[in-house]
Amino acid sequence: MIDLELVTIGTELLLGQLLDGNGAEIGRMLAERGVRVTRRTSVGDDEASIGAAVSDALKRTGAVLTTGGLGPTRDDVTKRVVADLYQWPLEFDATIWDALVDRFAKLGRTAPASNRSQAEVPRGAAVLSNRWGTAPGLWLEGPPGLTIMLPGVPREMRELMRHEVLPRLASRAGTAIIRSRTLRTTGVAESKLAETLGLVEDELKPLTLAYLPGVSGVDLRVTAWGLPEDDARERLDAAEHRLRQSAGEWAYGTDDDDLAEVILGLARQRHWHLAVAESCTGGLLGGRLTAVPGSSDVFVGGVIAYDNAVKTRELDVPTDLLAAHGAVSEAVARAMVEGVAQRFGAELALAVTGIAGPDGGSPEKPVGTVFVAWRVGRRVGVSRVVLPGDRNEIRARAAQSALYLLYRALHSA
Amino acid sequence: MIDLELVTIGTELLLGQLLDGNGAEIGRMLAERGVRVTRRTSVGDDEASIGAAVSDALKRTGAVLTTGGLGPTRDDVTKRVVADLYQWPLEFDATIWDALVDRFAKLGRTAPASNRSQAEVPRGAAVLSNRWGTAPGLWLEGPPGLTIMLPGVPREMRELMRHEVLPRLASRAGTAIIRSRTLRTTGVAESKLAETLGLVEDELKPLTLAYLPGVSGVDLRVTAWGLPEDDARERLDAAEHRLRQSAGEWAYGTDDDDLAEVILGLARQRHWHLAVAESCTGGLLGGRLTAVPGSSDVFVGGVIAYDNAVKTRELDVPTDLLAAHGAVSEAVARAMVEGVAQRFGAELALAVTGIAGPDGGSPEKPVGTVFVAWRVGRRVGVSRVVLPGDRNEIRARAAQSALYLLYRALHSA
Repeated sequence: MIDLELVTIGTELLLGQLLDGNGAEIGRMLAERGVRVTRRTSVGDDEASIGAAVSDALKRTGAVLTTGGLGPTRDDVTKRVVADLYQWPLEFDATIWDALVDRFAKLGRTAPASNRSQAEVPRGAAVLSNRWGTAPGLWLEGPPGLTIMLPGVPREMRELMRHEVLPRLASRAGTAIIRSRTLRTTGVAESKLAETLGLVEDELKPLTLAYLPGVSGVDLRVTAWGLPEDDARERLDAAEHRLRQSAGEWAYGTDDDDLAEVILGLARQRHWHLAVAESCTGGLLGGRLTAVPGSSDVFVGGVIAYDNAVKTRELDVPTDLLAAHGAVSEAVARAMVEGVAQRFGAELALAVTGIAGPDGGSPEKPVGTVFVAWRVGRRVGVSRVVLPGDRNEIRARAAQSALYLLYRALHSA
Repeated sequence: MIDLELVTIGTELLLGQLLDGNGAEIGRMLAERGVRVTRRTSVGDDEASIGAAVSDALKRTGAVLTTGGLGPTRDDVTKRVVADLYQWPLEFDATIWDALVDRFAKLGRTAPASNRSQAEVPRGAAVLSNRWGTAPGLWLEGPPGLTIMLPGVPREMRELMRHEVLPRLASRAGTAIIRSRTLRTTGVAESKLAETLGLVEDELKPLTLAYLPGVSGVDLRVTAWGLPEDDARERLDAAEHRLRQSAGEWAYGTDDDDLAEVILGLARQRHWHLAVAESCTGGLLGGRLTAVPGSSDVFVGGVIAYDNAVKTRELDVPTDLLAAHGAVSEAVARAMVEGVAQRFGAELALAVTGIAGPDGGSPEKPVGTVFVAWRVGRRVGVSRVVLPGDRNEIRARAAQSALYLLYRALHSA
């Protein structure tokens, strides 16, 4: 295990206008490779603070990773400050500049002169090539210690970590690691899940178990601390197996598995197509499905039927049905799913209608009431759920509930 | 203005299993009262790290606020470490213990002996009474400086900040405050915007300007530091005015304004309705619009036309047009927007077709190529944009670009 400190740079972090998501994500990525973050410091965009934070960290730990302050604007000063600490002069790097000019050209633009500062490199630093943005990462190793500088844009930070930083650190980190595995569940409340898993928790020791509830369900994270990689993997496999036994049909995947992706995979095996009809989710379900690369061979499309007239005209929901039951009803959800399946000629279909709030609730149908209808071949089912949260949480949970019901129906198909 | 450092304590923060929401929230609360957070340090639950972090902060700044490590378990060591720094012995406080016993009694339980440590107070410290949990806050003022200790449970931290810490700090901070305003822009790259605003930046002094790029555009944040409230507001008004002049039609709102909400507001004034036809965004545009409470009086719905057959059947896009130009083309975008406007009887319409990747690009139409068509009354326009990022960023940027083009068209309508 090696130790390292993080320095995250940005006045908005101190003012609390931005959560330090980069700091957390880097912590997770490093832990998985057996690199321990011993301290994280956040400072504003000023030279004195950045200089002091990096210099203190190098004195204490000998290794530091910074994010932020590498952009083209005047408040981006990290590189200059760190170069000064190493007493390495900044030099213009034509390779970086050419790549930057190319990048702009592909977007049909000319690289502005203000970006030239991004092509400057402290003499002696290794350049971590950034194919995802304009600011390259930098790797400085010399008398004061190891300094790794990454841009603060989350995606660029993430890709540079994955492709440049982690491989370089891995060779130094040794064999003990910190590793987690997440079993993803949905369709069950945290307290009910905790009741069901109560006794399992002791069996998992020395692994630790955390419950992480969110709009897509409750994730169960098991962590092995400081074990050799093979041992950790074996114990995590056993823990996952044990948790799956108890969580039963609530468990739909592990780690980064997405329920939309799981469903598309199941449908693809059967050469089935999927269409959606959305009222209260307003496109979120389509958005979830089309977020998956290659979804177009299964997902054909859908209708966002926000207005009742659209439900009638585009989904053939009878007006008298709407009048008799209201738009948020089992009967209308069923008519929507039949309508979209027939119009789009899809073997699989989902329909969602509900009350996302903040207004529109009633004693019989409070805010959060959602009807989900699914169709698999000729089988049709409708479920009523009442979902907690604000408007956006209810909508996100409604999309996840719809996917979950289709997932269960597909499993028994 | 007074300066203060934050020390947030918890191994889970360094491992990235928990975002430092407390650190951000305290930063916001303090800024509003004119207390500047000059540095935030996160350390694990071990005595040496906590001691070093608090002691360094006191030496640098003379004032520090900690959260976490005040619970009843063995890894809660903050109080002991800080008492040692002040060389103040811990003493049992019967008043705290009695309140704790009461609290447990109300829940029908007996206070466990392990909670006794929570009733210990460094001699000389003021107790910040915690009616929302078991660990009181502590206020230490003496030779090394000011140390404020709060529990890490967000609600307890928040209530203690509000009722105990902020009133005590307010009397020292005077009337100066830190206040920001954000001007939201879109449709322009950060570097281009920086070039345009280059000279304005100097005019804004002593206010500072930060560029915050994201998938919805570049936010410009101006901050007034340590000014009296009226003076700050006046200067921020002037700065916003000056930035709006330079940013021109790129600026669409301030602070939390959302472009979808702005558009719905403009359409509502004219009693117009809006429909969307989405290919590569797959529902995201509908999702953005329906995220706004009360959107149903303007937004009627749309078609997710992912498959070409859907474009023809549900949006009347001629098959020969698709064959001649391809689905990602100016002609098809135009046909989609005409189709959805007519079918849905909407005065306003948007259509998006593009290549979100990772596959499907070509030299003429690389990944990121998106055609957006808008319709306002009888006027129709189509724009081609090439958007950077991965699949999800391209899709999010495509939705934002579509909203932006409609916004511009509405402005000149």
